[in-house]
Amino acid sequence: MERGFRICPATRAKLNHIEAGEGTMEDDTVFQEEDFVTLIPLFKTKKEVRYVLRLRRDDIFQCKYGSIKHNDILGKAPGTVVKSHMGFSFIALPSDLSDIIRNYRKFRYVTQVIYPRDWGLILAFGDILPNEKIVEIGTGSGAFLAFLARRIGDEGWIYSYEKDPERAKIAIKNLESMNIPKRYTIKVKDVANEGIDERNVDTVFIDVPEPWKVIKHAWCALKPGGKIIIYVPTYNQVEKTLKELMSQGFVDIKIKEGFIRDIQVKPYAIRPELKGYYFSAFIIFGKKSMVIPWRYIVDLRKGIF
Amino acid sequence: MERGFRICPATRAKLNHIEAGEGTMEDDTVFQEEDFVTLIPLFKTKKEVRYVLRLRRDDIFQCKYGSIKHNDILGKAPGTVVKSHMGFSFIALPSDLSDIIRNYRKFRYVTQVIYPRDWGLILAFGDILPNEKIVEIGTGSGAFLAFLARRIGDEGWIYSYEKDPERAKIAIKNLESMNIPKRYTIKVKDVANEGIDERNVDTVFIDVPEPWKVIKHAWCALKPGGKIIIYVPTYNQVEKTLKELMSQGFVDIKIKEGFIRDIQVKPYAIRPELKGYYFSAFIIFGKKSMVIPWRYIVDLRKGIF
Amino acid sequence: MERGFRICPATRAKLNHIEAGEGTMEDDTVFQEEDFVTLIPLFKTKKEVRYVLRLRRDDIFQCKYGSIKHNDILGKAPGTVVKSHMGFSFIALPSDLSDIIRNYRKFRYVTQVIYPRDWGLILAFGDILPNEKIVEIGTGSGAFLAFLARRIGDEGWIYSYEKDPERAKIAIKNLESMNIPKRYTIKVKDVANEGIDERNVDTVFIDVPEPWKVIKHAWCALKPGGKIIIYVPTYNQVEKTLKELMSQGFVDIKIKEGFIRDIQVKPYAIRPELKGYYFSAFIIFGKKSMVIPWRYIVDLRKGIF
Amino acid sequence: MERGFRICPATRAKLNHIEAGEGTMEDDTVFQEEDFVTLIPLFKTKKEVRYVLRLRRDDIFQCKYGSIKHNDILGKAPGTVVKSHMGFSFIALPSDLSDIIRNYRKFRYVTQVIYPRDWGLILAFGDILPNEKIVEIGTGSGAFLAFLARRIGDEGWIYSYEKDPERAKIAIKNLESMNIPKRYTIKVKDVANEGIDERNVDTVFIDVPEPWKVIKHAWCALKPGGKIIIYVPTYNQVEKTLKELMSQGFVDIKIKEGFIRDIQVKPYAIRPELKGYYFSAFIIFGKKSMVIPWRYIVDLRKGIF
Repeated sequence: MERGFRICPATRAKLNHIEAGEGTMEDDTVFQEEDFVTLIPLFKTKKEVRYVLRLRRDDIFQCKYGSIKHNDILGKAPGTVVKSHMGFSFIALPSDLSDIIRNYRKFRYVTQVIYPRDWGLILAFGDILPNEKIVEIGTGSGAFLAFLARRIGDEGWIYSYEKDPERAKIAIKNLESMNIPKRYTIKVKDVANEGIDERNVDTVFIDVPEPWKVIKHAWCALKPGGKIIIYVPTYNQVEKTLKELMSQGFVDIKIKEGFIRDIQVKPYAIRPELKGYYFSAFIIFGKKSMVIPWRYIVDLRKGIF
Repeated sequence: MERGFRICPATRAKLNHIEAGEGTMEDDTVFQEEDFVTLIPLFKTKKEVRYVLRLRRDDIFQCKYGSIKHNDILGKAPGTVVKSHMGFSFIALPSDLSDIIRNYRKFRYVTQVIYPRDWGLILAFGDILPNEKIVEIGTGSGAFLAFLARRIGDEGWIYSYEKDPERAKIAIKNLESMNIPKRYTIKVKDVANEGIDERNVDTVFIDVPEPWKVIKHAWCALKPGGKIIIYVPTYNQVEKTLKELMSQGFVDIKIKEGFIRDIQVKPYAIRPELKGYYFSAFIIFGKKSMVIPWRYIVDLRKGIF
Repeated sequence: MERGFRICPATRAKLNHIEAGEGTMEDDTVFQEEDFVTLIPLFKTKKEVRYVLRLRRDDIFQCKYGSIKHNDILGKAPGTVVKSHMGFSFIALPSDLSDIIRNYRKFRYVTQVIYPRDWGLILAFGDILPNEKIVEIGTGSGAFLAFLARRIGDEGWIYSYEKDPERAKIAIKNLESMNIPKRYTIKVKDVANEGIDERNVDTVFIDVPEPWKVIKHAWCALKPGGKIIIYVPTYNQVEKTLKELMSQGFVDIKIKEGFIRDIQVKPYAIRPELKGYYFSAFIIFGKKSMVIPWRYIVDLRKGIF
Repeated sequence: MERGFRICPATRAKLNHIEAGEGTMEDDTVFQEEDFVTLIPLFKTKKEVRYVLRLRRDDIFQCKYGSIKHNDILGKAPGTVVKSHMGFSFIALPSDLSDIIRNYRKFRYVTQVIYPRDWGLILAFGDILPNEKIVEIGTGSGAFLAFLARRIGDEGWIYSYEKDPERAKIAIKNLESMNIPKRYTIKVKDVANEGIDERNVDTVFIDVPEPWKVIKHAWCALKPGGKIIIYVPTYNQVEKTLKELMSQGFVDIKIKEGFIRDIQVKPYAIRPELKGYYFSAFIIFGKKSMVIPWRYIVDLRKGIF
């Protein structure tokens, strides 16, 4: 049992063969070059360890538990065990995007990224669909762009604006290192001053510190009824953004705040973890309209005090 | 001002034409037959009102604020104003899927649906991608299937199992009424007893009261490293599900609980709404493995007391 | 079993006597005149029903399930069953303060009260102790004053300011109807304009729409190191209040937001309730200081944008 | 400005005197021997620093920012500035109980303490009042006992049971070092096996890993209608506890889960902190009854699956 695991009863027979080197899994489901692999230790570690690597023949992955040959993973089925030269065992699994963002050494952070826990909220509440034409303002490190680009489909395209050329460069490198489908263009341009080039856009997503400065431009870029989504971390930004949205012709405005808890994976002691992220940002949704509802005008004039 | 709105300054010129009946918006962005439209009142209502209708030439939509001719919406740009015969004004917007689920009269509930607030969490934490082969166990009313089918791409397919033939019928009708891309098959079959037909599946999503009865079948259906996602509303179900997952060869197990708050859309009084949904379900994620980590075995044997 | 309950095995013997009218419980633990009683139905009701009454010999309590004689409760032990003349059974229990606030017909709301779920947070984070001299600004309906007055001890006193004479009258009636220990004075006075009479106060608690207008007065009233606690429902108020606190000589400022969920009381389906209050207010805590930390001055000058 | 602070304008005159050594504050509000003092740095520190000390003439407090003479604090008003011999400035404030629990070096942890954020919820939802007779099962480190003992009044008393003699010793020392009013008795006794000595108790509070083993004893100890409060961190414990409560004659059962967020104290960037405690425990409340409601019996028999 010192190996840190036990073979699943249901597949013992099949695996006996594989373990004995007498067979492989079906071709379509084994690890191949360029695949991302997440290694999860089967031994005890002080804090959670996950390694992410991208498979290349003859490469060697180094970590404090020893070195692992990529060739030992290539051709193996996901969910099998690999060993470091020091004898430590890991399960090899396909990598989620959030594994890559957090653990792949070539992914560089130039800004706070949008948290994986918010990706889905943005997509689902914003009802972002494949084949949309999307404008993103604020490329940042490119993490959310990666999430979107993998879901934009063969007809969709993302135009992502970043005013800082250094950041844009790193985002481009990040995306290339992740092998993201090339369904995006990164533009180095300050939208607040220079506007948006595209028209008849389905969705404008904004993640910059001063979103109120680009809302007018978003209105012009959007098709009628088009969606605006704005990601802001502070209440002060919500206030300013909301005022601008309401006075520029956006309606059906909603503001959401997501809070996701991890539950402890212990069947005899099920409870939320004690500590974790309990806030990320406010997400504001709206739709381009031709009119400003009268109640917005009343609200904008009002001050409670 | 009795009209309940004001034209956006930026488009007044353009709209003057349209309001005067002298023009329309560009063709690609006006409402067309089969489109879903959400009508949001510009007048005050006691509680939030949203109407959803599907455009058909010569149809008339009836509500307590009067009747609205579909023809009055056809050819108009989203974000314009339509009036009922009683003089009530509404903004006409393209419908989100969650609008349709909640407000379209032809959508029938046969079960508690998965909440729109969870759709994105499932997709993002489960890293569900276009072109996957997905098995869903528990079609229910078809809401989540609709969400997925619109994002599965041209190469993906969803096999959705429902053991109750009546429910399956309603789900099929719901999906047809919503014009969801036909990238799914609904099968009337009890997975617990009859198993899953597909193999080498990317993702199995489970939303039935006793998920532990189908986990073995999910293991067989999944490709190595494939993803399992289980949606359960009570802690008791988490406990049983978790034990089964851990002993059947699933690893990288995570349990998430999402909680989404709406923030009041009032710039002078920004705060969360006072009341709302504060729980929906626990979402359990795992990946198919060939081995059972030894620490799982220890945990399964342990009882804290 | 049509009675809707079963006697606890452990006390069947003892209760046989009581049910047969052959005995009573010990004197110190039976219901007496002036006691508050909460009646909880033993039968099924559509939504939760709780009745609160105050015992007076020969009175009769009327509700839609029939009338109940106070005399039938007097002398009975809490936790026993009483019946209405229509045959409906209720458990009679001593009333919590929150039962009284919510269900006692003589308690009148003139304002939104501070929610019971926040009472304890204020007391514990504010470290409010018996025997303090407390100033409350904003008596409102008197609910929180009732909570405090029952815990202020024989040496403590609460000076509660209310600028609206009508409200003050109702609060006084509310408190008298609840038999709250008379450890308080309600003053009809507008603190923003007229200041606070007391000095060397331990704690100032503020629950008014514009707390920033009374913070200076609170500083003067407090003893050195004394505590200020401010209850505000919106972010906009937090911003203004915070600026005033920081510039007037308060330190060790903390802002808390409490969110309390009810868990469903079903052993076979344990989960949070689906819907409920998910916000009440922000609670701001600070302590009177002689100095303004330099970093506060920097923060007050800064604007992130 | 290198002093890290600025004198409050409103008290400059008064303070000029004090700073010049020409006067002190009124006697009742200056620091005296035995007082607890919290020192908060006026300079920047990497993570939050708070020191807690108890004043004794001629003592010297040592920390990494230098030594501070207790005599320099004695006789000073709270809210004034003290300096270490290395020139670092601190504000000296009276200590809250939670400061003491967390930062006083003589307070020793033998168990996970009940979090300060739960103290108030227990007190308020449990409606714990001064002058009650309370039984606590599970003394632990004594933190919650300290909270209660300071609020129990001159007629109340807490009987606290701890089965581990070593823990009991440390709890006694902790309480003595904190100068908590001696309104409690700590008993070294295993309630599960030996029961509770007291009768006609107002409240039983339970914080042990297996509360279901002491619930019967709590029933016997409580007066009719008396309150039971149970603190458990996992769902598994909730399930077992709930079953036992429902079958032993407790009614009006409620289960609460508190979640408290800290809001960032920055007026230009108000938002919740990103990370923190997002769970502590479930708190279960009930009242002693003579009967078991029939619906409890139905629920206990039911299993959803």
